[in-house]
Amino acid sequence: MNPFLDWRQYAGAAAEKFYKATLWQGEHFMVGLNCLEPNQTQSVHAHQGADKLYFVLEGEGRFTIGNEERTATAGALVVAPAGIAHSVKNMSGERLSLLVAIAPGPK
Amino acid sequence: MNPFLDWRQYAGAAAEKFYKATLWQGEHFMVGLNCLEPNQTQSVHAHQGADKLYFVLEGEGRFTIGNEERTATAGALVVAPAGIAHSVKNMSGERLSLLVAIAPGPK
Repeated sequence: MNPFLDWRQYAGAAAEKFYKATLWQGEHFMVGLNCLEPNQTQSVHAHQGADKLYFVLEGEGRFTIGNEERTATAGALVVAPAGIAHSVKNMSGERLSLLVAIAPGPK
Repeated sequence: MNPFLDWRQYAGAAAEKFYKATLWQGEHFMVGLNCLEPNQTQSVHAHQGADKLYFVLEGEGRFTIGNEERTATAGALVVAPAGIAHSVKNMSGERLSLLVAIAPGPK
C-alpha cells in the first residue's frame, strides 16, 4: 500500500449513517477516515481488545468516551481505550472529518 | 490518562536531536508528538514488530520510507510498516510538527 497519503483525497459523504474510507491497513493497525455530515452520529460502541484514536481534521464533534462528554475541534486528539464505550455526533452545520486509527486493526 | 488532548499544548523544541512528547500510552498503541526544528533529523531506523503512523500537523518534512523519498506537508499521512527503515528531515525554515502513533507501543 502507498505509504504517502493525503486524507483530503479520500473525503466524502454518505447519506445513510456516515462516510468511511480505509486509508491504510497493516498488521498492527488500521487507519481510516470518517466524515460525518451535520446531524450524523457514530453510535455508542466499544472495541474489545483494540485501542482507538480519533484526530479531528475539520469541523466539530461531540464525543463521549466512557462517562465523559466533550466537544472537540480541529487539532484535538480523542482516545477510546480498548473496551471503553464511545460515540461521536456532529451537532454543527459543517462536515466533521476524523482521522481514525485502530490497533490492532480488524483482521 | 485524559482521553481528550490538544497537540498544541505539548509542542516544544529541543536543542539536541529533536523534541518528543508522549501524548497517550495504552495497551495497544502509543501516541506521541515529534517537533523538528529546521535542519533537525530523525535518523534512519526501523521498528521490528510495530507499525508507525506519522501525521503532519504543521511544516514540511522530507521523509524516506524504505526506498521511497517524498516531501510531505500539513494533512499528509505517512506510514512506516513494521520492519521498514524510515527517516524524516526538516529542510524547511519552520518547525515541523508530527503526530506519531506506534502500534504496539513500547512496553
